[in-house]
Amino acid sequence: MRRISTRLADGRELLYFDSEVTAASTDRSTVFDSRDLEVTATASEIRHDALLDEWVAIASHRQGRTHLPPADQCPLCPSGGGRQTEVPAEDYDVVVFENRFPSFASRVDPAAELPETDERRPGLGRCEVVCFTSDHDTPMSRLPPERIRLVLDAWVDRSADLAALPFVEQVFVFENRGEEIGVTLGHPHGQIYGYPFVTPRTQLMAQAARRHRERTGRDLYADQLARELADGCRIVTSSQHWVAYVPFAARWPVEVHLQPRRAVPDLPSLDAAVRDDFPHVYLDVLRAMDSLYDAPLPYISAWHQAPVRVDRDLVSLHLEVFSIKRAASKLKFLAGSESGMGAFVNDIAPEQIAATLRAALPR
Amino acid sequence: MRRISTRLADGRELLYFDSEVTAASTDRSTVFDSRDLEVTATASEIRHDALLDEWVAIASHRQGRTHLPPADQCPLCPSGGGRQTEVPAEDYDVVVFENRFPSFASRVDPAAELPETDERRPGLGRCEVVCFTSDHDTPMSRLPPERIRLVLDAWVDRSADLAALPFVEQVFVFENRGEEIGVTLGHPHGQIYGYPFVTPRTQLMAQAARRHRERTGRDLYADQLARELADGCRIVTSSQHWVAYVPFAARWPVEVHLQPRRAVPDLPSLDAAVRDDFPHVYLDVLRAMDSLYDAPLPYISAWHQAPVRVDRDLVSLHLEVFSIKRAASKLKFLAGSESGMGAFVNDIAPEQIAATLRAALPR
Repeated sequence: MRRISTRLADGRELLYFDSEVTAASTDRSTVFDSRDLEVTATASEIRHDALLDEWVAIASHRQGRTHLPPADQCPLCPSGGGRQTEVPAEDYDVVVFENRFPSFASRVDPAAELPETDERRPGLGRCEVVCFTSDHDTPMSRLPPERIRLVLDAWVDRSADLAALPFVEQVFVFENRGEEIGVTLGHPHGQIYGYPFVTPRTQLMAQAARRHRERTGRDLYADQLARELADGCRIVTSSQHWVAYVPFAARWPVEVHLQPRRAVPDLPSLDAAVRDDFPHVYLDVLRAMDSLYDAPLPYISAWHQAPVRVDRDLVSLHLEVFSIKRAASKLKFLAGSESGMGAFVNDIAPEQIAATLRAALPR
Repeated sequence: MRRISTRLADGRELLYFDSEVTAASTDRSTVFDSRDLEVTATASEIRHDALLDEWVAIASHRQGRTHLPPADQCPLCPSGGGRQTEVPAEDYDVVVFENRFPSFASRVDPAAELPETDERRPGLGRCEVVCFTSDHDTPMSRLPPERIRLVLDAWVDRSADLAALPFVEQVFVFENRGEEIGVTLGHPHGQIYGYPFVTPRTQLMAQAARRHRERTGRDLYADQLARELADGCRIVTSSQHWVAYVPFAARWPVEVHLQPRRAVPDLPSLDAAVRDDFPHVYLDVLRAMDSLYDAPLPYISAWHQAPVRVDRDLVSLHLEVFSIKRAASKLKFLAGSESGMGAFVNDIAPEQIAATLRAALPR
């Protein structure tokens, strides 16, 4: 893998992650972004919601962001034919760059600078876009395993870099796929958020793991994995280093967790053998999901990592992939119970969806 | 107000809440449900999610529920013209009945009965449907204040009744409005859930209020209201007994909280003057919301009440009304950050939406 860091016209960082083959044949040093690109003002702030004791980001500059452009105006495709996109190169394997419309940024608009209080702070952080392929029409689920492996290298690299930023408390690697969940760009891509706080959900996870350790002396994630392996009926697939299962108390009509057999806090802590093993399990799961309704499944794929500075012995790395699609033509909406009370009602039994996914595994 | 309890053909309870005028002219004792209605099997259970220490409901019998029927087959319209609906009467003011496809029920299918463990329990509880009007095409926001007052009477009555059930820990009164948030029946109606657990969000609220009290000796809700009144810039409207404001750390592009000036734990604790005052403030807010985009705004309206048995001095009654609509043709989706990490990113500044709503208030 070759990693080259460069800058876009407005100063944002862009990184190429090239395979050995591409690296041998492609010179990135002569390519640069010649667009006349204004620096986007980022006026994001975070506010403390006292009723829930949680931080909320207010990022009103994002309202004007690019929304479902036609494929021939895709900003994530390579540049070429006289058209300049976010990626100056004529082709690429995997590319990562700072989001032009970030929820959090390392440079905050001085005009919007606020006095820091207990209640509001500037929205410092970093938001990156990860393009999985230069091919607009090939989703993650149809990429070859070697490409997923390269994407994983990029995720690891970015997780380590963002964790090193002094204002970042947690790094979140994720992919939103499908217009049904609000994806505004069709090109296969994911995102990385470096948050200036530990997210509400990760705080809950750390709290639950801490109570479990105090009560039993054991690790919650190891216990959960052992329990799923013992039950067996919700396992979708597994390999030497990974287990994919529908969790006992799944919230979503389709929900699969991918967990390494040996607990680690985050992506950079995975050793080479575990990384090499990942693409096969992940592709099997994604392809089984895509075959559920004879249509690409809209999904959110969310890497849970331990916070950067705290509770690193409590929260273990795992990937949660879930979909709001509950039937060929029906979506699960987060309505009153979920959005109002945080109480999920799942219309599909976890054991049933696990069996359906097992039957849909590629052979 | 006249309240009459009766039974549907399959044994579910139905209650008429009639205005004085209707009560004087309508005899409900001769009307009954003559449908040949099978008792629906309810195989709902709740499962403990150890990673978050939260309960999740699994209600797989709900998959077959009625989904967007045409208006002439609406099950919430009155019966008549040879067609029998869920409401046997030929007309009604406000009617409440047990949901035919409940997430929680007081009778659980014996075939699905489970041994109670720390991890799974039968989904005991109660789910009710509240029809605000017999008129299929008049939404809550266009009903007269007297009707809202009658709906409030029904909410109070049902909150008290459900709280008295031995297996109910929390009562949640809410309305989902609009296909954009997954409403499956167009008729103006809301729902009531009696949960067999304290919901995750209410647990967080109680925890935040407890810490605030320990730290300051004061009530969190009173302090928040005082702070919003002092700031002023996010107040939408107010009356003698109610204040409507966009909260400082709003999560949603449109979000308004209605809070009584004097803190009470739940709807039954509101005294008559405060109840009488509510419809005017609520209608002002709903009508301002509907005028934002020249189209009925999809929204979730969620009554937060204290749990039935615990923390009644910590969680105060308030109504949270919010919408996922962030522009005339754009929705806010709960994608990676919100659904994966519980970290909300709001693209609209709370002060801005408050000003817009104030300008849109009916005069």
